[in-house]
Order: sequence, then structure tokens, then C-alpha cells
Amino acid sequence: MTDVALPAAPAAGLGEWMARRLEQMEAFLDARLPADAPAGLGDAMRYAVLDGGKRLRPLLALAAWEAVSGDADPAADAPVWSVAGAVELIHAYSLVHDDLPCMDDDVLRRGKPTVHVRYGEAQALLAGDALQALAFEWLVAPPWAQARPALAVALTRELAVASGAAGMAGGQAIDLAGVGQRLDQPALEDMHRRKTGALLLASVRMGALAAGGAGAVLAALDRYGRALGLAFQVIDDVLDATADSATLGKTAGKDAAADKPTFVSLLGVEPARAYAQALLAQALQALHDMPAQPTQRLAALARWVVQRRY
Amino acid sequence: MTDVALPAAPAAGLGEWMARRLEQMEAFLDARLPADAPAGLGDAMRYAVLDGGKRLRPLLALAAWEAVSGDADPAADAPVWSVAGAVELIHAYSLVHDDLPCMDDDVLRRGKPTVHVRYGEAQALLAGDALQALAFEWLVAPPWAQARPALAVALTRELAVASGAAGMAGGQAIDLAGVGQRLDQPALEDMHRRKTGALLLASVRMGALAAGGAGAVLAALDRYGRALGLAFQVIDDVLDATADSATLGKTAGKDAAADKPTFVSLLGVEPARAYAQALLAQALQALHDMPAQPTQRLAALARWVVQRRY
Repeated sequence: MTDVALPAAPAAGLGEWMARRLEQMEAFLDARLPADAPAGLGDAMRYAVLDGGKRLRPLLALAAWEAVSGDADPAADAPVWSVAGAVELIHAYSLVHDDLPCMDDDVLRRGKPTVHVRYGEAQALLAGDALQALAFEWLVAPPWAQARPALAVALTRELAVASGAAGMAGGQAIDLAGVGQRLDQPALEDMHRRKTGALLLASVRMGALAAGGAGAVLAALDRYGRALGLAFQVIDDVLDATADSATLGKTAGKDAAADKPTFVSLLGVEPARAYAQALLAQALQALHDMPAQPTQRLAALARWVVQRRY
Repeated sequence: MTDVALPAAPAAGLGEWMARRLEQMEAFLDARLPADAPAGLGDAMRYAVLDGGKRLRPLLALAAWEAVSGDADPAADAPVWSVAGAVELIHAYSLVHDDLPCMDDDVLRRGKPTVHVRYGEAQALLAGDALQALAFEWLVAPPWAQARPALAVALTRELAVASGAAGMAGGQAIDLAGVGQRLDQPALEDMHRRKTGALLLASVRMGALAAGGAGAVLAALDRYGRALGLAFQVIDDVLDATADSATLGKTAGKDAAADKPTFVSLLGVEPARAYAQALLAQALQALHDMPAQPTQRLAALARWVVQRRY
């Protein structure tokens, strides 16, 4: 099984930071995911979330928090941990539902059988539903949310909008309707801005909000997050067309097999790679626009998103 | 088609109040549900929620608000409308997912084809997911949530816990595992306390919290909500065994056909009816324990829950 927890080639300076944050994130998720939910539901939820995944969204939230706060290490009870956990729960639930037979009908995810293959369709459906509820529960959990309710409200709103009909779920509906259709580039970008971009952007914004980010700094992070979100999807399409399933930890070549519109089908492999590089430059420029902030983690994450091999 | 929007025989004094609140609630839902969500998702969401349903959860929230606040009519921008809408969205999403082929595989709901029959399984899955996100969005929506963030945090927490692994989703997992099994009465009640009881109780509690309810009043409303939630399920089982599909607006006799444990299979029809009456008496006693509050709507709703014919 491919180790999908660490990048094949982390950008300079990212490796040690990323390893520490991934370890902290895994400990947070392991401690907070229910072990005692009834009738196997907790097992399915934990299986869906733990032991796998790039954790890109939590890392973006943590890096954005660091860029705004200037602190190197968030305290154990800092809101940013709840943020990082919540965005990962939303991502995990969306994968569980996406993999169901009525959606993408996939059997392999993060190098393991998908949740419905392991636990059955009904339990996978419920596990996804319960993970979404848990994400919102974490954003209003004691003690910090009671001490800083205005922050908790702002974060909850960001996550709800990013994951709902105007965001992730809406993008999935477009994706569903687009199978076998020829989308032009603006339509394809609109779909991905919703389907994956909204939650990636929300991860950056929520990390920044948790550190008190506002005004010009938040606007620059918005530009960073939008460019990074699109670059992520362009590279995802390139990898789906060029990598093998063992490296990806999920079934490769699915998009072409499903006749889905992608940046590769629209532009070709090399132009798609070049487009991702241009988006990376946009993301890095946005970081340059906030020179007073320590943005090196965000820069390294953007480079990693474009250079990754899975 | 059976009109399922109004009760066959509203308890004394409930009819006019209920008709007005149902009309207001329908207008609220119609105005707030997205009309512009992409690729048919908004249509599926609106179909799932509008034009049908008893709206018991919103009515409980509104009645609890009135009992605590003493006001007859909540203002148009009062938080209780968001509460009433949010609990109905959670209920509606749970029905959409429950009706899917991998769960109960039902084709009739509220007298109409179920969402997946009308829009396809994948769209139904997404519509349910987006409705859950929208419920949380409404609880942190401007302007009131920004003005009263501590209340929004408390409400969001109530709803997340009630609908998640410890509540509704957990109860559904037990239900799923219980098919063909013989549950004893405590196990059956534990399942229903989670599956339907948690959200009914949360509707009462959230309506009360929105009016500033706390202490002994909230504790009495807890007792009311728990007794009412269980009575609701006992009567649901009685109706499933005794009524026809046209009256129910959903497929009758499903529990026995699916070999699900019910209060009727455990106790028999008449003892189940008597048990519901005893639970009604408990609910009314809880209201008597808060004599300073105007609880007549809550009392009438409890009577209606036990006397209803669908």
C-alpha cells in the first residue's frame, strides 16, 4: 500500500513542519472522532477519516493561521485545531458520499477499500451524514466557542456556505450533470470553483479568521486560496490521466472512463501542467502582496500542490 | 392526493394558531430555500421540503418559544424562525436519505414520489447533503446571529448533537442493524430516543433557548420533549400497522414487511395506544410543572401527536 500520509517530495522547508502538523492533526482527529457511536457507525466514521489522506485542507488552515498570527505553534486549545478538523471532516464525508454506487461508484480510496465496500452502502451514507454534523459540532464546541462566539458564528457560516448548494454540493451537481457533456473552460472552472475550490478556499479563510485576519490580508489570502484551489484541480486531472492507481491511492483514469470533462480533455496534458504553473505564480504573487506576514508555509504548500505526484 | 398540511382533527384551540404558523413557515421556507442552486440541485432541495409535511418540529419550536417568551407572535426577524426552519431542513434531509434504495427504498412520501424517484439517486443524495449544510447556515445567518452570537453557538450545538452520531444518525444506524432482530423495550426506546426523539427534543429546546429559556423551565420542557418524542414514535408504529398509504401519505405496513421491531410488534396495537396515552400524560404533567408559562400550544400539540390519524 502506498504511504499517502507524507508527500513524495515536500518543498524545501515544508517537510519537518508538515510532519509535525500531520502528527498533531492525526492525534486531534483520533481523540475527537467518536469511538462509541452505536451499531458500527463510529467505526465507519473513523475508517473514513483516520489513517490516510493528504490533509491538505487542515494544513492550509494551519498555515493560514500561522501567516496571520505570526505564531509558530497554535496552543492545544486554539480554535484553529477545530477549524482544521472540521474542514477535514467535510472533505471526508464528501468522499464517502462521492464514492457511493449512485455517484462515482468507486471501490478504492486512500489505498483502501471505500467505506461502502467495507461497511455497506447504508452505513456509508449515515457515516457521511454524521461526519457533516460533527464538523459543525466541532466549530461550536466548548470551551473556545463559548469564549469567542462571534468567531464561532463566522467560522460556521464559512463552512456551511462552502459545503452547501452554492459550494461543494452545487459543484457536485454540476459535475453529475456534466458527464458526457462538453464544457468550455469557464464552465469547467465554475464547476471546480464550487466542487473543490470552495472548501479549499474556506480552509484558508477559516484559518485566517481564527487568527483575527481581516481587510487586505484576508483579501490577499482569498486570491491565494482561489488560485491554489484551481491549481489543485488542474493537477488532479493531470494525475488522473497520467499516474497509476497504486501511486494515487484511488482508481486512476476514472475521468476519461466516465467521459467527464477535465482540464486534460480540454487543454491536453502539457498545457494543463503549464496552466497549473501559472496559477501557482498567481498564488505566490498574492502572498507577496502581504509582505509583513510569515507566508512561507503557504508558499510551500502551493508549490507542493502543483508538484505532487498523487 | 391527501392534504397532509393540516391535521384531520386539531385539538381545541390549535387549529387557527396552527394554520397561521404553517402559512408563515411555508412562506419562510419558500423564500429562503435556494431557487438558483446549480444543475437542478435547488429544485430537488425545494421539492424535498416544500408543499408537504406536518411541520411538527417547526410547530414545536414556535410553541416552545411562545411558552418561554410569553409573546403571541414572533417578529419576522426573530431567531425562532431560523430555528423552526433549520429543524425542518434536518428532518427533510433525513427523509430524503432514508428513502434511498440503500436505506428504506421507499417511493412515496408526503403523498408524492420520493426525491430519488423524481430526481435520481445521486441528486437526492446531494440534495440531502446540501439541506443539512443549509440548516446550519440558517442558524448563523445575519442579522440576528451576528447580534446574538452566543445564542447562535448554543443553537448550532444543539442541532449538531441532535442530528449526529449520538442522535439521529446513530439511531438510524441502530435501526439498520435491528432489522430482523428482536429488540426489547429499553433497546427499542433507546433507538427511537436517538432516531426521532433527539430532533423533536432539540426542536423544543432550541425554541426555548431562542426565547432565553433556562433552568427549571428548560428542564420541564426537556421532560415534555422526551415524553412527546417517544409518544410520537409509538403512534407512528400504530399508524404504520393500522392506517392505509393514502391517509399516511407514505407507504403503510412497511415496518412489518421489513421485519422491523416496533412498539406494535412488541406490545400489540391496543397496549401501544395505551402507552402513548401514558406518555401524553407525562408530557402534560411536565407542562403543569411550569405554571407561570403559557403552555397551551405545547399541550395542544402533544394531544395532536397522540390523536393524529397520519
